[in-house]
Amino acid sequence: MAANAVLQIPVTCVTNGESEELNDAIAIEEPLEIRLEHGPAAERKVQNISVTMRTPGNDAELATGFLFTEGIIKNALDIQQVAHCFIACTENRENVIQVSLAENITPHLQNTERNFYTTSSCGVCGKSSIDAIRTVSSYENNFPDNSIINTDVLTTLPGILKKHQKVFADTGGLHASALFSAEGELLLLREDVGRHNALDKLIGAAINQNILPLNRSVLLLSGRASFELVQKAAMAGINIIAAVGAPSSLAVQLAQEFNITLVGFLRGQRFNIYTAPQRILIPSYEDSHQK
Amino acid sequence: MAANAVLQIPVTCVTNGESEELNDAIAIEEPLEIRLEHGPAAERKVQNISVTMRTPGNDAELATGFLFTEGIIKNALDIQQVAHCFIACTENRENVIQVSLAENITPHLQNTERNFYTTSSCGVCGKSSIDAIRTVSSYENNFPDNSIINTDVLTTLPGILKKHQKVFADTGGLHASALFSAEGELLLLREDVGRHNALDKLIGAAINQNILPLNRSVLLLSGRASFELVQKAAMAGINIIAAVGAPSSLAVQLAQEFNITLVGFLRGQRFNIYTAPQRILIPSYEDSHQK
Repeated sequence: MAANAVLQIPVTCVTNGESEELNDAIAIEEPLEIRLEHGPAAERKVQNISVTMRTPGNDAELATGFLFTEGIIKNALDIQQVAHCFIACTENRENVIQVSLAENITPHLQNTERNFYTTSSCGVCGKSSIDAIRTVSSYENNFPDNSIINTDVLTTLPGILKKHQKVFADTGGLHASALFSAEGELLLLREDVGRHNALDKLIGAAINQNILPLNRSVLLLSGRASFELVQKAAMAGINIIAAVGAPSSLAVQLAQEFNITLVGFLRGQRFNIYTAPQRILIPSYEDSHQK
Repeated sequence: MAANAVLQIPVTCVTNGESEELNDAIAIEEPLEIRLEHGPAAERKVQNISVTMRTPGNDAELATGFLFTEGIIKNALDIQQVAHCFIACTENRENVIQVSLAENITPHLQNTERNFYTTSSCGVCGKSSIDAIRTVSSYENNFPDNSIINTDVLTTLPGILKKHQKVFADTGGLHASALFSAEGELLLLREDVGRHNALDKLIGAAINQNILPLNRSVLLLSGRASFELVQKAAMAGINIIAAVGAPSSLAVQLAQEFNITLVGFLRGQRFNIYTAPQRILIPSYEDSHQK
């Protein structure tokens, strides 16, 4: 695995109400655009095939495997070359990869439209993604700091979620998104095989109840925090996200840009604060910053 | 959560080399097509917006939340009605939902093409998805039973994976796909923030090494087994898939159709066999079936 799969960032690590500033390693998440060049020499053309959020490294394998498992190419002999390519946004050269097919090969693109499905938002580089979200968010740069949660309350949330997560208990197979008040009262809970669907269901329910923006609540995620989930939360005006699992690099970057508090590894009496720690009340943190 | 989120299926549960036939609850995974009806009365039109693999239940919330978090609608007042709708394939009525906007509302679709990204394959109903895959698979109905694995070997695989999963150890944030020989030798390992990317990377590496079809190997997944992952494995000719986590209903259905052995909850000395148990050598199972 390439060295660029991991990023070291400063975090506030809280254990039993005591906080400590540490460095933490997080997994890098960045978009990769897969392009396909094909056709006879006189009529070569380039098509965008897919954009996927991935961890950098083994990009040529990823592009080759994707084209194969989607039935677009039949084997390695179809491919002339796989290479990262320059686009206008040159700083993100490594986020665009082009697969060039041999001249006599016709890719099987007829099923593409039928077979591919869309999920979530992104652009080709982190920056443009974030810009795209800022454009459409109804609550941009407009999150008052009016949700504040105590460490004591925060650490109880995973236990409350677990007690109510009926289908997970039965199957061990579902992601959950839950909305809590700052006092730790469970307001909404939705489950799904897809983590983005669980959050969309929760936000859809909140829309139906006419309680947006959700800037007085805390969102709890049963698993990891990806870019996609932070983006959806931002759209609904949520400004505290706590995940039982790890965050990705782009999730942290997006939370930072939107001044959203992002907590990860919320387990037992421990958690890490990645961004905007001012909304988490930690007695020891307050003490040490008032000295 | 609706009752249709869970399906009871028969499984072979293996504990310390002893097998038992049980019923197990699995999470239902099915595609949902989201359609948008909009425009003035005289020119109403319907557009397909997205197909997502979801657990049935709260579909109207899912569609509403999705359209909102993607910036296509601004609030609940934009919506006139949300309803499941009949399509030609009437048996799957519940897998298509239509959101009808108020006549004076113009959806913000201009960013759709830029913002959505594609991932994985599917159709609108499980059956058509499976048909679509069968069409493109190079190895269709052609998996000889030549990978057989011993229970003793199978239960060692997660430990071997964990030892080699470098980035996960650092970050706690990555999915892994690993390929083992039937003797338990680690052949390939790839990690990614996206589980489908980890498997695409692995299959891309196998293509580059010219070792397809992978019908003498065992695929180990660090998390859950979804439809998408079984589909990708099927394309590469893999006929034993073992997951540390739970499988979804559509993953089991697809494995069954392709005669792929699907193992779930592979932890310690325990695992469940969901399909094609003949490739797992269990002393007690052999005994009981020879009696």
